[in-house]
Amino acid sequence: MYCFNNDYSEGAHPQIMKALIEASLDQHDGYSMDTHTEHAKELIKKEIKREDVDIHFLVGGTQTNMLAISAALRPHQAVIAAETGHINVHETGAVESTGHKVLTRPSADGKLTPAMIQEILDEHTDEHMVQPKMAYISNTTEIGTQYTLTELEALSRFCRQKGLYLFLDGARLGAALTSPENDLSMADIARLTDLFYIGGTKNGALFGEALVIAHPDLKPDFRYMIKQKGAMLAKGFLLGIQFEELFQNNLFYDMASHANEMAMELKKAFSRCGFPFFSGSATNQQFPILPDSLIARLRQSYQFQNQKKIDETHTAVRFVTSWATKEEAVRQFTQDLETMIKELAAERAEARK
Amino acid sequence: MYCFNNDYSEGAHPQIMKALIEASLDQHDGYSMDTHTEHAKELIKKEIKREDVDIHFLVGGTQTNMLAISAALRPHQAVIAAETGHINVHETGAVESTGHKVLTRPSADGKLTPAMIQEILDEHTDEHMVQPKMAYISNTTEIGTQYTLTELEALSRFCRQKGLYLFLDGARLGAALTSPENDLSMADIARLTDLFYIGGTKNGALFGEALVIAHPDLKPDFRYMIKQKGAMLAKGFLLGIQFEELFQNNLFYDMASHANEMAMELKKAFSRCGFPFFSGSATNQQFPILPDSLIARLRQSYQFQNQKKIDETHTAVRFVTSWATKEEAVRQFTQDLETMIKELAAERAEARK
Amino acid sequence: MYCFNNDYSEGAHPQIMKALIEASLDQHDGYSMDTHTEHAKELIKKEIKREDVDIHFLVGGTQTNMLAISAALRPHQAVIAAETGHINVHETGAVESTGHKVLTRPSADGKLTPAMIQEILDEHTDEHMVQPKMAYISNTTEIGTQYTLTELEALSRFCRQKGLYLFLDGARLGAALTSPENDLSMADIARLTDLFYIGGTKNGALFGEALVIAHPDLKPDFRYMIKQKGAMLAKGFLLGIQFEELFQNNLFYDMASHANEMAMELKKAFSRCGFPFFSGSATNQQFPILPDSLIARLRQSYQFQNQKKIDETHTAVRFVTSWATKEEAVRQFTQDLETMIKELAAERAEARK
Amino acid sequence: MYCFNNDYSEGAHPQIMKALIEASLDQHDGYSMDTHTEHAKELIKKEIKREDVDIHFLVGGTQTNMLAISAALRPHQAVIAAETGHINVHETGAVESTGHKVLTRPSADGKLTPAMIQEILDEHTDEHMVQPKMAYISNTTEIGTQYTLTELEALSRFCRQKGLYLFLDGARLGAALTSPENDLSMADIARLTDLFYIGGTKNGALFGEALVIAHPDLKPDFRYMIKQKGAMLAKGFLLGIQFEELFQNNLFYDMASHANEMAMELKKAFSRCGFPFFSGSATNQQFPILPDSLIARLRQSYQFQNQKKIDETHTAVRFVTSWATKEEAVRQFTQDLETMIKELAAERAEARK
Repeated sequence: MYCFNNDYSEGAHPQIMKALIEASLDQHDGYSMDTHTEHAKELIKKEIKREDVDIHFLVGGTQTNMLAISAALRPHQAVIAAETGHINVHETGAVESTGHKVLTRPSADGKLTPAMIQEILDEHTDEHMVQPKMAYISNTTEIGTQYTLTELEALSRFCRQKGLYLFLDGARLGAALTSPENDLSMADIARLTDLFYIGGTKNGALFGEALVIAHPDLKPDFRYMIKQKGAMLAKGFLLGIQFEELFQNNLFYDMASHANEMAMELKKAFSRCGFPFFSGSATNQQFPILPDSLIARLRQSYQFQNQKKIDETHTAVRFVTSWATKEEAVRQFTQDLETMIKELAAERAEARK
Repeated sequence: MYCFNNDYSEGAHPQIMKALIEASLDQHDGYSMDTHTEHAKELIKKEIKREDVDIHFLVGGTQTNMLAISAALRPHQAVIAAETGHINVHETGAVESTGHKVLTRPSADGKLTPAMIQEILDEHTDEHMVQPKMAYISNTTEIGTQYTLTELEALSRFCRQKGLYLFLDGARLGAALTSPENDLSMADIARLTDLFYIGGTKNGALFGEALVIAHPDLKPDFRYMIKQKGAMLAKGFLLGIQFEELFQNNLFYDMASHANEMAMELKKAFSRCGFPFFSGSATNQQFPILPDSLIARLRQSYQFQNQKKIDETHTAVRFVTSWATKEEAVRQFTQDLETMIKELAAERAEARK
Repeated sequence: MYCFNNDYSEGAHPQIMKALIEASLDQHDGYSMDTHTEHAKELIKKEIKREDVDIHFLVGGTQTNMLAISAALRPHQAVIAAETGHINVHETGAVESTGHKVLTRPSADGKLTPAMIQEILDEHTDEHMVQPKMAYISNTTEIGTQYTLTELEALSRFCRQKGLYLFLDGARLGAALTSPENDLSMADIARLTDLFYIGGTKNGALFGEALVIAHPDLKPDFRYMIKQKGAMLAKGFLLGIQFEELFQNNLFYDMASHANEMAMELKKAFSRCGFPFFSGSATNQQFPILPDSLIARLRQSYQFQNQKKIDETHTAVRFVTSWATKEEAVRQFTQDLETMIKELAAERAEARK
Repeated sequence: MYCFNNDYSEGAHPQIMKALIEASLDQHDGYSMDTHTEHAKELIKKEIKREDVDIHFLVGGTQTNMLAISAALRPHQAVIAAETGHINVHETGAVESTGHKVLTRPSADGKLTPAMIQEILDEHTDEHMVQPKMAYISNTTEIGTQYTLTELEALSRFCRQKGLYLFLDGARLGAALTSPENDLSMADIARLTDLFYIGGTKNGALFGEALVIAHPDLKPDFRYMIKQKGAMLAKGFLLGIQFEELFQNNLFYDMASHANEMAMELKKAFSRCGFPFFSGSATNQQFPILPDSLIARLRQSYQFQNQKKIDETHTAVRFVTSWATKEEAVRQFTQDLETMIKELAAERAEARK
């Protein structure tokens, strides 16, 4: 049974594990005040080509989203997201639990546009309604799509004009930036957003997200927020050590590239067999629409999730690859896929007799 | 420079690191639904001699306290703690951030008693005041003291009689249970409290706390709370693997015993030199009251924290040992202590001439 | 300038003012512990034909909604509403400010159905998403429509089956129950919902809503919630006195009937002139779709609100009548309407020449 | 049975009731956008001799405190109060329900001093603890004492130096400003605090508090907060009308003076009989320490509250007078007091025979 469920099934890249072991018996300052953390921040600043940012290392994505949003908003303010946004659906109301409404618009490709935001602004005009103050986007999105430079520039310009903070959830930023269709750099993102995070958990770290805060209004007292939400790791050096590894020797990008390449193999296999896709993803999540009979057969050997029922006999499913996905597993899968399709055709032919 | 600042300066015990490496390339189910987690739960149930509990593995102490308390209380209810309680002082208002008041009484030894709780109940009698509904204790306490079986039984009986949940913060439970003055077992704690947690972070794990919920009213939907507060680790198996190691082959107790033994060496050294103590601790935190001149001298070679100014020339300081504290470091310290005292005496004699 | 903006432009019915004055110099117990409040509760229990309810008198509608919802839900639970629901749009995120998500579905007629709820339940299946626990409906709805007995029975049955609380916002319950199309009694509502409130503010009281709690799980400690949210009126007897008047001598229904009758006159006038309506309301809010030129002309003499732009030259507007709406004002309006239509037609004819 | 329980037992002063009746059938703009409200604001600005303030009329004291504090603080910030402060004790955790800790120091006279605040600042030094950001005081205090100009100036200077907002709860501001021992004007208070409120509920209005915001950082979007917390009165003109009356023709001060005079009569009576007092109040709350036997006897004819048990046979009780307290009731009380003392003495003498 091979698992294409997600990109956090395995632990961490051996290089990261090695670094953790090597530093394990040293004494470090607590709460991310250590030298590894300091060094990791320097590496990221170099990567994003900005010195004037605050960087905080956090454990997970929901935690990072909740913190970034609740620290930025006053009680009556709201965050805008695509209806598919992770904060709207898959975080058990974490944002609302801090007192803020998530305002949404349907989005076929998982992306947010200035037009969608404008619609929401038009509806929220006085104190009888919440006040939109932040736009939340994810890159890649929850359905594997990604923003182009042109799109991000347009969003950035629009948000600055309207006085909205722009926050980018980069849980899968590695996958976005190494996709064949990408034209963004991490420096572009640091330049065009007010805050964003670089995902480690889904890209080869044991855990960890690096939140980069560029807007000066969002910097003060952020460590208080971290501590208050139970997000300050006593052994914060564990995060520093991991991000040092990620941003030395290109490991962050190498792992993401591998994940994308494996996904492209899957995509080609599904395409070859004539299956359509639920979303136009060129990254490590693929959403083929498959016959339910084939899905049942595939599940005998592979784990993967349902995305959405399409019609009586078809379902969009999700295949996720990661830094750890084995080439031979993908090769085996593409063979199994073709075999199973043939078997099913034969069985149907048999049944019709 | 050797660090006695805290018990989370180092990474994890080599056995734990080894287990993490070995499992790192396996595929695991996410969000603590994996087999290591399952096994770790079984080990803990065996240790506490109760099957009818829910166990959740969380990343850190503040997070665990916030979750346990906010999941248990309705909006108008409050938690009672000693004034020195971690939730009252050192968690940046995490409990209040979830909407609940912390009601306190001064406590010389860091412990809570039925009499202290009764005073608070007497003052909170109707809907114009919050409704006390939980008592929070820590073992060891924030100043290294610990509860006896008699004390815990009295608290337990009292809380049950009054309809209060009893929650024990076990961030340093290992130190408590392996102290020479201890007469409690983990099974006693599971029997006498409604929920408690077993601290890993401060006892040789990379991170991790095991929350044990015994009271049936506190069990439903707890995983929703974990997710909502950003506390659900994607790679939850990391927690399972660590707690497997902690509760196999006695590692949890061995590490805590070592920490306590190292602390007892420090205690003896301070006592030999005639220094009094701020609290009667027989565990891995020692609070000698030292002359400020000696403190300054010690800081040239050792890191440790101030606890409280005692008078014009004396301060209570905190020395913390851990599973990783080296015997030779402690030996060196006791020698240095005596040497420095002599040096200072000589300098004072010189100055008086 | 006559105002059809809303049903809370005037103070209170003279009978209510008289009762307030008469009791003004008496001494009353504070915080709704007085005898007028007791009596008002008895009158309401008689009206709803249920003794086994708790009744609380509150000042306003948003306050009542926020209290009812936040007291009923645990932190991870959510409330379901039509997208047009008052709690979703016009309460500045009051529900979210207490930590809870509002889950919505579009609704053409402002009503919620079992099918809409089922869709939401289907999407919320595990702890990565909020847990739906309450359905919120308003009667009349925000667009003047109302539930039939059959509809409310179906909702009630469905909610009980699914373990959802059913909460009815009755800010305009008087208008609903006295509408020519109504087949519900207040006793039906008390029987079919778990909690609901009877609106006084929009039906002739100075202010005040009566929250009726029938579900036993929702009763305990509710006064604590009231106090905590700043909603406990020191001079609570003011609420008791007003609800005594409302439910003596049929005043509650008489005032609502008057408001509805005035609205029916407006409706007939708009219909006679051939204008369509945005919603099928038979209650005190009417939403005709008018040409923008006519709207501009009407605004010279009347106040009313825009509801929604329909096309380039038409807008749905909202006319609200109340217990205090004067018959002569309505008569004058219907005359002015016809006159203005003719004037505009003449001007257009002139312009075309 | 005459009631000295509190200063909100009666409705409102006849002048206020008259004004409410007169305006009751007029049409007003909703949500405090009406002309009465505008006028009331002008009257208050004149009274406090400041034009550069925002004024909001709210319904009650707990509501006003909760709003003022939660609007001013970021999530990690806390408010400082005397242990006896209303927000700390008698508001069912309203401040904590909005996420903020209340930091306290014991205070014998109910007042807060720079020294007390400094102690708290000294203890809150980094992100592991909440960040103090506001000082809360009440005038009169909960035990009837009041601030002098010198004291308020010192507090104001200290808070500005330390970057703390200074908030004054004026639920009983009328009693403070008309006390024989007062040397403050309302203009002083507006000059020395960052925000404060003028209490109507406890000084002859049906209900209503006027929140005056002077600090520019605290003004933006305050109406959003009001709406979100369920505190925006639909018929806001009711508040405007009442404050117009209060600040026309000196009614606010006249009513408070009457209450104080009645209290001074009670104070003299208790003093004459040789009873000591729990607090040195020269305002409308008096706290004599009486023998329990006398208390029992008094309760046969009078209502009043216990404040605190003093010893085995004595209790401090609270007598409150108001704008509505009748001179003849006070006269009767002083006679009854003396009579009952004599009766009890006679009974004791009898018993000793």
